[in-house]
Formats: sequence, structure tokens, C-alpha cells
Amino acid sequence: MARVSQEHLDARRRQIIVGARRCFARNGFHATSMQDVLKEVGLSAGAVYRYFSGKEELIEAIVQEAFEGIRDAFAEAAELRPPLLPDEFLSHVLRRVLDGPGEGDEQAFAELVLQVWAETLRNGELSANLRAGVVGMRALWSEVVRMYQAEGLMSRDVDPDHVARTMMAMAMGFLAQQALFGDVKLEQLEDGLRAIMRMEVPDPSLPGAS
Amino acid sequence: MARVSQEHLDARRRQIIVGARRCFARNGFHATSMQDVLKEVGLSAGAVYRYFSGKEELIEAIVQEAFEGIRDAFAEAAELRPPLLPDEFLSHVLRRVLDGPGEGDEQAFAELVLQVWAETLRNGELSANLRAGVVGMRALWSEVVRMYQAEGLMSRDVDPDHVARTMMAMAMGFLAQQALFGDVKLEQLEDGLRAIMRMEVPDPSLPGAS
Repeated sequence: MARVSQEHLDARRRQIIVGARRCFARNGFHATSMQDVLKEVGLSAGAVYRYFSGKEELIEAIVQEAFEGIRDAFAEAAELRPPLLPDEFLSHVLRRVLDGPGEGDEQAFAELVLQVWAETLRNGELSANLRAGVVGMRALWSEVVRMYQAEGLMSRDVDPDHVARTMMAMAMGFLAQQALFGDVKLEQLEDGLRAIMRMEVPDPSLPGAS
Repeated sequence: MARVSQEHLDARRRQIIVGARRCFARNGFHATSMQDVLKEVGLSAGAVYRYFSGKEELIEAIVQEAFEGIRDAFAEAAELRPPLLPDEFLSHVLRRVLDGPGEGDEQAFAELVLQVWAETLRNGELSANLRAGVVGMRALWSEVVRMYQAEGLMSRDVDPDHVARTMMAMAMGFLAQQALFGDVKLEQLEDGLRAIMRMEVPDPSLPGAS
């Protein structure tokens, strides 16, 4: 038997993950069978089961990879100095998240995220993972908000976690729009957020406000 | 046979919708059977099929009702004068949307929205409906943004639709957070958005900016 290189094994594993992700993105986790996955990746059951014991393990690998991609994008954006402003931060994270999968499949990735959310509603383990991940990301974002406050860019009266949740809502909503409508551009979100950040709203309680 | 009042018929129809909504919110449209619905509402098949020919019709009624509730909330908020500021607008709409179902079931409603999104990914008719609804809501929100611009609260350089998309992303992301984590309060989002609106960001291109 010919020796199979690690490279070959890794490439094959990726091929399975990418194809399965496309299936799950399209039809959800519940309605996708291993048969669908085999058909999509064009491999035999034997070839696929060598890498994944079944659908559950495949789902776990895909969700895990998506989580890690998003978490890394956040960590990277939060480390930049001077801190990115909200519009820059958001587009930096989302661009990285959507490019992350690396297979030029932004649309499929956004759809997958929506499917993961729906699956999360009835999968306790997934829910706990997602919750822990989001708490970590909110903490990173809160750190950035504290820097805005220290630099006088934002009122110290606001709880940084509330700003972090709001930014997180924007990121999640953008992914939902991308998945559902496919017609939204990151530049539009950046542009809209920048205009909101630069509103001229009188506030008598803030000494520096107009 | 006793005459059945319209009131009774309406109440029974509501009972079925509320119970079915709870099932769909929990398990999604695909994994919920009519048997699950019958069990949840505690009625016989005969009683339920009198109102709905089957699962598809039930889904349609529920999605339709959710769409209308959200659209009405937008229309109402957009009509207020002077126009609500973004934080007020968002909380006005979301409060109305979450109270809309009327059965004190905010959590179930948010979960239902997520399930509708996932279902939308593979249901062309639903997708067309959602898309049309969202275009209408964005137009309403854009009108409000134009008022901000006319009143000098926001730069005229920004495309109102971009701001509308950004606000929409926040609303969608909030619903996703509510569905997934159940621990988010509307006041937190309002608070976070208010702080972002009041950031002190230098912008040399705006004559009025600090």
C-alpha cells in the first residue's frame, strides 16, 4: 500500500469539512444526512468515516472551527494599539471572520452561523460553548471601550459591557443580513456606524457635549 | 348542535397559534410534527385541523403574524414627531415587537425569529416575503435618518440606507442575543447605543465637529 502523506490527510479532511459546511449551511444540521455530505464531497463512505465517526463529530469539528475563527478575529482586533474605533473594530472583525474559512465562501459561512444559532436553541452543549465564547468576546470588547473612556472618546458613565453588547448585536445582525439577503456590504455597516458615532446629539449631562 | 360564537373560534385559533409557536421556537419548523403541536395545545387532531389544514398552513399563519407585528412596530415608531433618536427608535420598536405576541413570551418569540431565519435559508417563498418586508422597514428607517440630516443631527454625506441597515443589524442582533442567551436587556442596548451616538470622535471633514 502506498504511504499517505500527512499533507494529503489534512487536505482530505479539509475537503470533507468544506463540503459538509456547505450542506449544513444550506439545509441545517437536522435535515442534512451523511449521504448528502458524501454526495457533496464526492467521496466514498469509507473515505469519510476514516476522518469522522459520523455526523455529530463532523458538526462538532465545523462548529469548533467557526468558534475559533471568530474568537481569534476578536482577539486580534482587540490587541491593536491605538485601539480601533467602533466602526474600524467591527469591520476588522467581520472581514476576518468572513475571510476566515478561506474557501471564498462568505455566504455559506454566514448561513452556517445562522444554522448554528438555530441548532443552539435545542442543543445544551452547543449553547454552553457559544455562551462561554460570547462572554470572552464581550470582555475583550469591554477592554477596548475602557480605552475609549480613558482617552475621553466616550462617557465614563456607561457600563463598557453595554457598549460591548451593542457592538456584538451589530456584528451578529450583519451576519444575519448577509446570510438572509446576501446583498449587504461591510462598507455599508461601517459607513452607517460611523455616521451614528458622529451624530451631533445635545446632552446636558455631559460637560464636553455641544 | 350548539352554536359556536366567533369569539370562541378566535380564541381557539389563538390557542393553537400560541402553542404551535412555542413548539416551533423550541425545535424548529423541520423537527416539529403536528403531533407535537396537538400535545402542546392539548386539543384533538379534529379540533386543530378545523382551523389549519396542516403544518404548512400553521407555519404560514405564525410567520405572517410575526412579520406583521414587526412591520407595524416599525411603522408606528417612524411616524412619531419629532423623530425618535436611534436609541429611542430601537428600543421603541423592539419593546413593541417583543410585547406584540401578547402571551408574555418574549423568549419564545425571539427564538421563533431565529427559527424563521434558519427556515428562510431553504424556503424561497419565505425568503421573498422576508426580503420585501425588510426593504419596507429600511425605507421607513431611512426616512427617519433623512430627518436627522435635515435637522443637522447627522452628516448629510452618509447614505440614509446605510444607517438604516446598521440600525436593522442592531435590532436583529439583539433578537439573536435574546434568543440565544436570554440574559440581555433592552436597556443595555439603548445605553450602549446612546454612548456610541455621543462619542467624541474628531472628524476634520465635518465643519461642526470638535
